[in-house]
Amino acid sequence: MNVAVLAHEKFPDRAKTAVGLLRYADYEIEAVLDRDNAGKRVADFVPDVQDAPIVAEMADVSEVDALVIGIAPIGGGFDESWRSDVTNALERGCDVISGLHYFLEEDEEFAELAAANDCELWDVRKPHDDLTVAQGVASEVDAEIILTVGTDCSVGKMTATLELVEAANERGADAAFIPTGQTGIMISGWGNPIDRVVSDFTAGAVEEMILEKGDDHDYLFVEGQGSIVHPAYSAVTCGILHGSMADKLVLCHEATREAVHGYESFDLPPIPEYVSLYEDLAEPVHETEVVAGALNTMHVESDEAARREVEQFEDELGVAATDPVRFDADAVLEEIL
Amino acid sequence: MNVAVLAHEKFPDRAKTAVGLLRYADYEIEAVLDRDNAGKRVADFVPDVQDAPIVAEMADVSEVDALVIGIAPIGGGFDESWRSDVTNALERGCDVISGLHYFLEEDEEFAELAAANDCELWDVRKPHDDLTVAQGVASEVDAEIILTVGTDCSVGKMTATLELVEAANERGADAAFIPTGQTGIMISGWGNPIDRVVSDFTAGAVEEMILEKGDDHDYLFVEGQGSIVHPAYSAVTCGILHGSMADKLVLCHEATREAVHGYESFDLPPIPEYVSLYEDLAEPVHETEVVAGALNTMHVESDEAARREVEQFEDELGVAATDPVRFDADAVLEEIL
Repeated sequence: MNVAVLAHEKFPDRAKTAVGLLRYADYEIEAVLDRDNAGKRVADFVPDVQDAPIVAEMADVSEVDALVIGIAPIGGGFDESWRSDVTNALERGCDVISGLHYFLEEDEEFAELAAANDCELWDVRKPHDDLTVAQGVASEVDAEIILTVGTDCSVGKMTATLELVEAANERGADAAFIPTGQTGIMISGWGNPIDRVVSDFTAGAVEEMILEKGDDHDYLFVEGQGSIVHPAYSAVTCGILHGSMADKLVLCHEATREAVHGYESFDLPPIPEYVSLYEDLAEPVHETEVVAGALNTMHVESDEAARREVEQFEDELGVAATDPVRFDADAVLEEIL
Repeated sequence: MNVAVLAHEKFPDRAKTAVGLLRYADYEIEAVLDRDNAGKRVADFVPDVQDAPIVAEMADVSEVDALVIGIAPIGGGFDESWRSDVTNALERGCDVISGLHYFLEEDEEFAELAAANDCELWDVRKPHDDLTVAQGVASEVDAEIILTVGTDCSVGKMTATLELVEAANERGADAAFIPTGQTGIMISGWGNPIDRVVSDFTAGAVEEMILEKGDDHDYLFVEGQGSIVHPAYSAVTCGILHGSMADKLVLCHEATREAVHGYESFDLPPIPEYVSLYEDLAEPVHETEVVAGALNTMHVESDEAARREVEQFEDELGVAATDPVRFDADAVLEEIL
């Protein structure tokens, strides 16, 4: 599928979804829309992802199948300055994919244009209507289930999970990614947005995905969300932990993070406490173990300092760890495959 | 407020909401609708609650302010055999209160009749639109916050909580009930249905209620939901635990329950393990302690055997316990007030 990705005024540093798509998605990305950087190329900013021209608006993009909204403003609203790009896409028969809280299909103009031009509006954050409570049967699938769990939000759980899947497949394993958040869903083209489902269905929405994919693969890597001690989001984390019935956990952390992101009055507990909390909480539903760690060293300057951070993280964890983006995923995969 | 309570073919044993309303609500209950028991009285079945006549249909009820749906069929659907009762109520200007998954306000006939007769349709299970994520500030209110937590669903957390509030107020304390489920909300006339909110807002929906009531009372007793190791519902439990930032926990259990209700392949962990799990999981957000236990001995025949069950529960818990319905709430309140 050929797509254009909208990232106005935010590419690349505040365009997490756009960069995730460039790095991991199977889409051919024909162009990135950023009116502040029109005329440049993706490769001028981000070296290790697929390259594409940066253009000012949708009208500058040649034939594509879809326009993807690749940024999420605080609050998840729709920025009216993007309206002409979306209408231009729909008028040309392109689908539009969005992870905003603001649902495009509830926008009258977009809904009418989509109907008139036979396009799909895919609001990835809108859960489907048939979700229900978990039955407690995810462990019955044939695949081994691995879940990434975190010390906090935004420590790199999605990235670590995608790197593990890619590296596992490169080693010849049959591994699949189970997406639980909007960027993961856009990258994969399917999935349940766990943070938007009815709270009673949190575990059930994860279980549904595992039952759907479990007999087609040998390993399922479930994208974790939040943290089990997050003041606001722990419900989502807990539902994924129990709903996935994971056989193995990979603990994700960001080097030097000491307090909950956005909730700085809450200190992160010591690493060994996370290990006990996740394992003890999971055990009555399905016994599991933290088998490895993934450390995000993005904000550590030198590779040498990053190696030291990984070693310290390993000491605290008591198991092997790596930064799967900066280095490689080998140390973690040794414990899984 | 004067109300009639619909409980067709299910009163009293399968009409948990109706019996809860008769026992705890401030409503004057003028009649119970049960076509199988018309002509009898509530007191013929349940001795220790407010009495009322049982009638065959709404047309047999004299002037009331509202009709309350007091039963919930599996799946939460609307039984078409109740339609004439609801339309009769609306035609006479009565509000209708429902905790069904099926929202009355989305039923065209009911919506039209309600508008025509200036009645309110209150779907208590429909969360309001302004819910959002928790800020992690529930502990800042003046009141002491007590949360009932459970070893499973349906062990009597709502009942224990209501008994504690009543007994605390009888002792002269200023205690309020924070409702989190549909029956508790109907009894109280307000509240957020935590199991129906968006999973990201689970903790926030509890926090909102605590901030609303916290400065008006000395003690807030928060109705707990589910169990922290429930294969399907633990997300809700975890969100309430962190969102409430409870100062004290009361562990609720049903005597002789050994497996998860409806999920019998999952054994309940030993009681001391629940104590550690709840305390350890809460601690990084807000330190708390299980200070007492509430044991539901409804299915234990003799008072003597029930006393023995309570004593055994106390031994396992390491703190005082009681059955607040069968005996009294004193042993628990000693640890709280």
